[in-house]
Amino acid sequence: MAFQIPRGTQDILPSEASRWQYVEKKAREICRLYRFQEIRTPIFEHTELFQRGVGESTDIVQKEMYTFSDRKGRSLTLRPEGTAAVVRAFVEKKMYADPNQPVKLFYIGPMFRYERPQSGRFRQFVQFGVEALGSDDPALDAEVISLAMAFYQSLGLKKLKLAINSLGDQESRAAHRAALVNHFKPRIGEFCSDCQKRLEQNPLRILDCKQDREHELMKSAPSIIDFLNDESKQYFDQVLKYLTELGIEYEIDPNLVRGLDYYNHTAFEIMSNAEGFGAITTLCGGGRYNGLVEEAGGPSTPGIGFALSIERLLAAIDAENIALPIEKGLDCYIVALGDRAKERSVSLLQEMRKAGISADKDYENKKMKAQLKQADRLQAKFVIIIGDEELEKGVANVKNMATGEQDAVAFERLAEYIKERK
Amino acid sequence: MAFQIPRGTQDILPSEASRWQYVEKKAREICRLYRFQEIRTPIFEHTELFQRGVGESTDIVQKEMYTFSDRKGRSLTLRPEGTAAVVRAFVEKKMYADPNQPVKLFYIGPMFRYERPQSGRFRQFVQFGVEALGSDDPALDAEVISLAMAFYQSLGLKKLKLAINSLGDQESRAAHRAALVNHFKPRIGEFCSDCQKRLEQNPLRILDCKQDREHELMKSAPSIIDFLNDESKQYFDQVLKYLTELGIEYEIDPNLVRGLDYYNHTAFEIMSNAEGFGAITTLCGGGRYNGLVEEAGGPSTPGIGFALSIERLLAAIDAENIALPIEKGLDCYIVALGDRAKERSVSLLQEMRKAGISADKDYENKKMKAQLKQADRLQAKFVIIIGDEELEKGVANVKNMATGEQDAVAFERLAEYIKERK
Repeated sequence: MAFQIPRGTQDILPSEASRWQYVEKKAREICRLYRFQEIRTPIFEHTELFQRGVGESTDIVQKEMYTFSDRKGRSLTLRPEGTAAVVRAFVEKKMYADPNQPVKLFYIGPMFRYERPQSGRFRQFVQFGVEALGSDDPALDAEVISLAMAFYQSLGLKKLKLAINSLGDQESRAAHRAALVNHFKPRIGEFCSDCQKRLEQNPLRILDCKQDREHELMKSAPSIIDFLNDESKQYFDQVLKYLTELGIEYEIDPNLVRGLDYYNHTAFEIMSNAEGFGAITTLCGGGRYNGLVEEAGGPSTPGIGFALSIERLLAAIDAENIALPIEKGLDCYIVALGDRAKERSVSLLQEMRKAGISADKDYENKKMKAQLKQADRLQAKFVIIIGDEELEKGVANVKNMATGEQDAVAFERLAEYIKERK
Repeated sequence: MAFQIPRGTQDILPSEASRWQYVEKKAREICRLYRFQEIRTPIFEHTELFQRGVGESTDIVQKEMYTFSDRKGRSLTLRPEGTAAVVRAFVEKKMYADPNQPVKLFYIGPMFRYERPQSGRFRQFVQFGVEALGSDDPALDAEVISLAMAFYQSLGLKKLKLAINSLGDQESRAAHRAALVNHFKPRIGEFCSDCQKRLEQNPLRILDCKQDREHELMKSAPSIIDFLNDESKQYFDQVLKYLTELGIEYEIDPNLVRGLDYYNHTAFEIMSNAEGFGAITTLCGGGRYNGLVEEAGGPSTPGIGFALSIERLLAAIDAENIALPIEKGLDCYIVALGDRAKERSVSLLQEMRKAGISADKDYENKKMKAQLKQADRLQAKFVIIIGDEELEKGVANVKNMATGEQDAVAFERLAEYIKERK
């Protein structure tokens, strides 16, 4: 009986896995330069954390979570995003008491959302995200944005667009919210049932609705920009000024409202407008969430972060036709002829590997010609050929596969010989 | 309201995460040398895969799986181990048709078992495992074992013990099974209910029972070693011979039976007898599973692999008091005095990071003394001090924190200066 992979998930096979390794290594390198440190939280959390931390009114919580009970009846949920759990750990591990504030963290790991599978969308996907907790300096907003941009640029992406908006502080948001309710309430009956619920829970999210995006009230809806109080305006201006100083271009998009409930002040998205995508595609989303730590039971602590999908990133790399500089092939393949040589090749392999040389041999009792073919397919740089004669003399035949050159090399010098030339 | 991490799981915080990064990097390096390539399978699979691939009679399947239904009612299970999913992918992606056999794969990722949490045992834990599919050459058994040993040794572990056994081929196992049934059946009523079930399902697993380990029939139970047919004996001898050639010491343990159903021939465990552990602790388990690919719906294909827990490995590293060579600290911290310097420090940070220098600054409006203190706590190698005067002159004050030396360095030469000295 053959088994199938669960719908909406994927296997990442070796050729693709090397690209994942490369971009994840880059992410870790960039984070080191910016002094963001890794945190790893569990794959699942108590369901309530996401209800509270992501927001009851979001699609994620209402429709997309993988929720189940453990054997004691506790409700657990596979994490749909990374921020809530990082904030949970920040509070539970009392990181707010660390003398080094802000606490700058990053994570890379799988997230889970039960969505309709479609091209480029998976039910399990990997996010790289950062969170900086403990400072409301607008320079930190610029730093977080510049980290994301630097990461994409380090991979060669060029067709990037940064969209930014301010959602203001609580006062500004409350004023905007009231205006939104006034705007939509008289005709809310013309909107979908989700939007009708949103009018009460979080009217800002009506602007996010895919079903009602063409309704005439959408375009004329009051914009948050017009409701920012002086403090919020000043904060936003500072962020923009720093971005300019860092040479980061941006477009202000007053309709940019993040799908999660806990954002305030800075909200941003990085998009790719590479032709390969057809349409503009969001690669990364982030923003400030000064209320979330308190919501999760901690002391009032400002925070800002972003999350980006590695799947989407790799698609953007493809869309821009970028070949990542990934080393392929094998340093050395051992061709062994006859039983004695076969046996000797086992310890010879070990000598190579101990010297830092990647090496392999035949494990299928292949003839010489077939072994050479395999060496070729594996893109071996060198082939060591040994048979009874070579064993007797203690000298092996080494072939440089790029040049075709052959050398007779004493067994005890083989590792050194290849190491110098590979 | 404060949230707690789910029982039996852990957060890996930055100081610990750097150790994880280090050992995982080593695992990837060793796998490259041995030409094992990474595969990433989903966190969950169809439940049936594990029932079939791990075995109905195992504790894992009977008691320890996190099983749930998705919104369409399909039964899914968080993977309790890595082999079944790799084999599922091998069959589904037709890797048996790859011209390069054996297919040599590795994985690193979280696994889930609902066990009673205890010191060093978690419900979510990370396994590093390898699987070599497509060859039944005993040299491959030795290679897989030597990879595990080389990995541990590359991390400095010395107190290692390799235990090995052969479970024989199907014929040998059938003969042994019959002898076990004969041995236990007359007095099976004296054993636990699990063992009574095992007598029918898989009597070999009675030997694994923790509850009945002291029963007198346990010691006198027939040993598989006495039931190995000639072919199985010869296979085992070959494996042992290769191990000797590779300089790998072993102990034959006739009671070593793996808890999973699909093993045959070689079974092995690597243990630590470091004093810090108190008792001997198993770090790694593996073996041959020539029947599994067929069980999973593929063509008959031999396989061998191992899995080891990273948590257990880090505990062994602690038990042997090994300090991993992890780079700590920051290359450079910028101390800025006054508003203009604060603003300039944002772009200065970027210049440093672009040059590959890890750098940070104050985001809390701290006084000079507090900024210097933070630089110290972050173990910065260099501190760049800038104020109004420095901005005017275009020259910053750079302090080497190890030597106390100070230099005046022009802004445009700062990155170069630190890069040369860090």
